[in-house]
Amino acid sequence: MSSDEQQPASFAAINLFLLSTATFLYKLSRNSGRNRNNGIFESEDGASYRIGSRGIECLRPALPYLGAFIKCCEDPCHPKTNPSGYIALCVAENKLIQERLALRLMPENCSGEAFSDTVAYCYSNMLGLPGAREAVARFLTRKFLRSGENSEHKMVSDVNNQAQTKVDPQHVVLSGGAASIISNILFALCEPGDAVLIPAPYYNAFENDMKLMAKCVPCPIYTSDPVKGPSPKELDSAAAAVVKRGLCLKVVLLTNPNNPLGVIYRRGVMLDCVKWARSKGLHTICDEIYALSCHQKNNAFESILKILDNDLRDDVHMIWALSKDFGASGFRAAFLCTQNVGLLNALGNLNIFTCVSHPIQLVTSDIFNDDLFVDSYLEEARLLTVKSKAICERKLDQMIIPYVKSEAGIFIYADFSAILPQPVTFSDEGRFSEILQNIAHVVMTPGSSQRETRPGMFRICYAWVSEEVLEIAMERISYIVFKIRKLGTRYRWDDISEKYLSEVTTCGISKSGSLHALSAIQ
Amino acid sequence: MSSDEQQPASFAAINLFLLSTATFLYKLSRNSGRNRNNGIFESEDGASYRIGSRGIECLRPALPYLGAFIKCCEDPCHPKTNPSGYIALCVAENKLIQERLALRLMPENCSGEAFSDTVAYCYSNMLGLPGAREAVARFLTRKFLRSGENSEHKMVSDVNNQAQTKVDPQHVVLSGGAASIISNILFALCEPGDAVLIPAPYYNAFENDMKLMAKCVPCPIYTSDPVKGPSPKELDSAAAAVVKRGLCLKVVLLTNPNNPLGVIYRRGVMLDCVKWARSKGLHTICDEIYALSCHQKNNAFESILKILDNDLRDDVHMIWALSKDFGASGFRAAFLCTQNVGLLNALGNLNIFTCVSHPIQLVTSDIFNDDLFVDSYLEEARLLTVKSKAICERKLDQMIIPYVKSEAGIFIYADFSAILPQPVTFSDEGRFSEILQNIAHVVMTPGSSQRETRPGMFRICYAWVSEEVLEIAMERISYIVFKIRKLGTRYRWDDISEKYLSEVTTCGISKSGSLHALSAIQ
Repeated sequence: MSSDEQQPASFAAINLFLLSTATFLYKLSRNSGRNRNNGIFESEDGASYRIGSRGIECLRPALPYLGAFIKCCEDPCHPKTNPSGYIALCVAENKLIQERLALRLMPENCSGEAFSDTVAYCYSNMLGLPGAREAVARFLTRKFLRSGENSEHKMVSDVNNQAQTKVDPQHVVLSGGAASIISNILFALCEPGDAVLIPAPYYNAFENDMKLMAKCVPCPIYTSDPVKGPSPKELDSAAAAVVKRGLCLKVVLLTNPNNPLGVIYRRGVMLDCVKWARSKGLHTICDEIYALSCHQKNNAFESILKILDNDLRDDVHMIWALSKDFGASGFRAAFLCTQNVGLLNALGNLNIFTCVSHPIQLVTSDIFNDDLFVDSYLEEARLLTVKSKAICERKLDQMIIPYVKSEAGIFIYADFSAILPQPVTFSDEGRFSEILQNIAHVVMTPGSSQRETRPGMFRICYAWVSEEVLEIAMERISYIVFKIRKLGTRYRWDDISEKYLSEVTTCGISKSGSLHALSAIQ
Repeated sequence: MSSDEQQPASFAAINLFLLSTATFLYKLSRNSGRNRNNGIFESEDGASYRIGSRGIECLRPALPYLGAFIKCCEDPCHPKTNPSGYIALCVAENKLIQERLALRLMPENCSGEAFSDTVAYCYSNMLGLPGAREAVARFLTRKFLRSGENSEHKMVSDVNNQAQTKVDPQHVVLSGGAASIISNILFALCEPGDAVLIPAPYYNAFENDMKLMAKCVPCPIYTSDPVKGPSPKELDSAAAAVVKRGLCLKVVLLTNPNNPLGVIYRRGVMLDCVKWARSKGLHTICDEIYALSCHQKNNAFESILKILDNDLRDDVHMIWALSKDFGASGFRAAFLCTQNVGLLNALGNLNIFTCVSHPIQLVTSDIFNDDLFVDSYLEEARLLTVKSKAICERKLDQMIIPYVKSEAGIFIYADFSAILPQPVTFSDEGRFSEILQNIAHVVMTPGSSQRETRPGMFRICYAWVSEEVLEIAMERISYIVFKIRKLGTRYRWDDISEKYLSEVTTCGISKSGSLHALSAIQ
């Protein structure tokens, strides 16, 4: 699999996806259309669409920067063939590691096997094939529950048989993506309109995942130091705000390692949160989707499975998926670990709509039972991730742009507020974002789309593009930062014209196609 | 793939599935538990489950004969090793044809390819990969829209380019199973509590599919001749009954070829139904999941795509899947064809939870673009299906048990009312069902679970077991029918004891393990 060769196909795919939905979505959802009788929805331009009110709610665009991302797919940057093209730094997907996984899966003794077994073809347990649930349980035991222990590399069968030391396959659910797990859990645990607390800033698709089917209300937890995670006092304040809105609080959702901050919540913080939630009779969902993308070999991450010594009771639910750490979001394979018997049984029915394709379950089992591959793959992924992160950090340091020192994940959360007109507003963030997109052809995730309180924050996803393209993107950003700084502190947005930034899309590219540093064009 | 060798694994899978859910489901859902504050549900036995009211609704068992089916999985009949074991004739899954599909998919140039393409790993269009939507559109054009035409076997690119002559890939949605399509469509088109009309008897999981997420109300259409399908007058009556219940009618759902009847609705009936629905402003969903399992080479089936000349407008929606005709329900791959732009865009978001794993989309595309394989596979499937059907029919004829002359599908709908105490009640059907299950170790789908109005009807699924096991099942049923007839018309259920039927589980098996006819044991 050549990444270079395949990218056009991949881009084309995403391109068509977005084109097919975005135009319509924007037109329809932003307008205050009218919902007439009998499920006919009339948009302001007079067109009528025969869908119901819940269908109309689905038309809200999931991402506010969708239009810009479409351009990244239509006109992607390529160092040689399209050096001034668009660059997406807004997608948290690790493309750097997909080839290695493909090489493991392609041979017939893996992929072919997945289609040779009768269970691949037949109806089975909607929670997952028994063998797959066992493989996932074994994997979660080794990489989450007992991670860092000496026995991690021992076969799980070697360790003694007490329940606490192993994840029970009966507590594992396979589902088609973390989004479907979140939607299903909230659907089963909450009533429509119930509130879910999430430390802000947070992953910008959570709101869509929670509202669409489950009809829950995401409510941010604002903290004095988002890097540390919420304190019981901050949780109290957030809960009070929920009550003030007249909502019933039901769940606390923690993403650890955190997206977009890239930080790891420490054991004490996680324990305090769970204790706090338990004292209020709330559920805690721990989304650990970036758990195996920690940047240090010895890192501070501890899964909630480990922190609670595998005693999740009926109120703590842990999620992981292939999407991030294995770069396989296209597989639609995510995993829930819960000990809530009622929830497990509800999902046994609900998961009819969202269960994982059986050949994919078999392939996943095959990988999870191959400890040597898993460990070397994750180590290779770590090295590649750290390399791209270093490119980002080096350039941000040069720009004197502060950023959160990330410990995990495939993104950096950077603070561009110092170069925006003071006092900075979200409108300024939006203007800066537009300049980046329209003139520099670089798309980052703006803080405003992630319920950030401070304007000027951007998430930079560095693993969706090659190192070479990442270098180009960072050069372009450097150029803009340099040009804005040149204007002094009291500039107006009109000063930053296309003309003023005319060289931005040639940044990072020499005439021979090789990279050259920002200094060369200053 | 040896079917014999693999069956224990397959059985074990289903076994664990059912065990893990059924016990709990039965206990909890049948009890009138109390839903306390804060999402804690208390069952009558005092146990409390922390789930919400929607979670509790998920605990209703999808199938009333689940307990008996569990026994089929725990203790399956095998002609040599377990001749008196249980036999499931209640699952509409075609296991006869899976091996041939496996042989096509296993080689690396198919299965391996599916894992070599970057698009397999990445986020893409939630409606389906562009290439997959094209392959499905081409397949639907050839096998549904233009089925039976001389040009069916020509490449679609040969036919002229008018929209009507081809299914547009933009009108195709790939989703994880027909159940998820039905749930998503109804969610997007209907309001909670809206009614869906379905000709009775009908597929017994429809109710679960409609109620769980979409919160729609399935309402049977009763007809004078279910084999023909509903007439406009009967639709009027059904609609009037809906209005009388105070419900808002939104959708008519037609399964053609029909499950459980196995009949094909004729063109005129389908047209009348669509016209009727249109005149009332209703949507029509055509579930054609058995379309390619017609028993005659030249058969009466016409897809709604063909009947409407591919002009579905915004109110007719067609569903097909790999599950039945390709014996691959485990793949979780189903297909919607709709021209409702609002619905397509709503699904672009909703399908985040239910989209098809990308490697499976690639494998599906590969098959759908292989016309020679598709045609020879379906012909082989047809011959195997007809052979098993003949075993059923021959035995039913011998028993003088009437049945619907099926034209498609993998089941026969048989009328056992003549051997039940007159006048027959559903309680008698239940008693007969229990005798079949508990004494004869044979499980069929009772009519009562399919909203049948006449007691004594049973669906016999003949493709879930080998021909040999099917022969044994039919011998056992013959034996019971013979023994009941021997008692005359005025028997009581107590007469039909285990002792009276003591030889039933030896039917069809000689000491050497070979089959012997019913006459030999009479």
